[in-house]
Amino acid sequence: MQRIAVLASGAGSNLQAILAYLAAAGPATAGAVSLVASDRRQAGALAIGARAGIPSATITDANDARSILALLAEHQIGLVALAGYLKHIPEAVTARYRGHIVNVHPALLPAFGGPGMYGTRVHRAVLDAGVRITGVTVHFVDEAYDHGPIIAQWPVPVLAGDTPSVLAARVLRAEHRLYPCAVAAVASGRISLDAAGTVRGEAGAPVASPVFRLQTEESEL
Amino acid sequence: MQRIAVLASGAGSNLQAILAYLAAAGPATAGAVSLVASDRRQAGALAIGARAGIPSATITDANDARSILALLAEHQIGLVALAGYLKHIPEAVTARYRGHIVNVHPALLPAFGGPGMYGTRVHRAVLDAGVRITGVTVHFVDEAYDHGPIIAQWPVPVLAGDTPSVLAARVLRAEHRLYPCAVAAVASGRISLDAAGTVRGEAGAPVASPVFRLQTEESEL
Repeated sequence: MQRIAVLASGAGSNLQAILAYLAAAGPATAGAVSLVASDRRQAGALAIGARAGIPSATITDANDARSILALLAEHQIGLVALAGYLKHIPEAVTARYRGHIVNVHPALLPAFGGPGMYGTRVHRAVLDAGVRITGVTVHFVDEAYDHGPIIAQWPVPVLAGDTPSVLAARVLRAEHRLYPCAVAAVASGRISLDAAGTVRGEAGAPVASPVFRLQTEESEL
Repeated sequence: MQRIAVLASGAGSNLQAILAYLAAAGPATAGAVSLVASDRRQAGALAIGARAGIPSATITDANDARSILALLAEHQIGLVALAGYLKHIPEAVTARYRGHIVNVHPALLPAFGGPGMYGTRVHRAVLDAGVRITGVTVHFVDEAYDHGPIIAQWPVPVLAGDTPSVLAARVLRAEHRLYPCAVAAVASGRISLDAAGTVRGEAGAPVASPVFRLQTEESEL
């Protein structure tokens, strides 16, 4: 069973979704959240972790790769899941956890990603661009911001009258459905990153999002 | 009833989809295809137009705005629909037909658009980027390539084992559903471009794709 660290800067709603998903899987679960860490001492995520009896830690220097790696080693972490963690992950950490560190981004990458694209800024940019479809992307984390190999995506409609916060709430609901599923798939090894940087699924073939595929089977064009 | 010109460089499958859609609407139809024009004399689109008894024209110099405007005026064209037309539209034409010239692009703009992004090149770029969701964009045409205000978008999944041509075929099926619907909506004035460059729907409010909205109502996250 994979030991998972969730890193979050905010309220921790994705952490909560991951905990609920893994709990629902029961004994068949692929992993367990064994550490919650945050760069912000007052992050809601730390309180959620504490309530669930999960060890927590504050990352006092987000650029100090050695102490982050020591923390992860101390808790025997096999998979790192970023969930609204707003600091850049040091390269030594992404290198050590290559294929074992994932992130969720509230847009369809490669659109609307990169430095400065976080929180409601993403959704404001989406609305300014006038696009009709945005979504959620789960990807492996590499040294470039919002850039690593894509694991899963889910589309979310932009609707008439949307404000950044209304759209953010709709996208967040999609994150809560897609991210736990993707985290569990990586934790169990059903989805992995090969040496060439290609995302592999169960049968060794590149995979589309299992959730999205399920959806499109029902409502195929 | 709006007189529509369809400009195409290729086989004309989107033209065929538009003709079928408008024919199915019967007397309630918002417009009729009154001209098919192509930069390529041997384009399949011209044959499809001829078979439907629609006047056709070859555009011998795609940069000659005067002759294109003269052709459109001669046929009293109110709406220009680009359907796989690979030449850049001269600025004098996009200016004269501002809000009355539309295009379909086989990806979710702003991703995977711009000069050089046409045909299977788009789908190759999508596969190279490893994205799980691509789609179709219908937009008003302005002076910048693949840039004008978005009218409608539709998501299409990228699936395991997709090649550029397999993906192209799946996206094309979505084009055939979305584009005729969007063309009819613009022809009838249900969707329009206001002076500020904002896409407006029936009630004067910015609109999402009616087709996509329908879909998501059924399968809301």
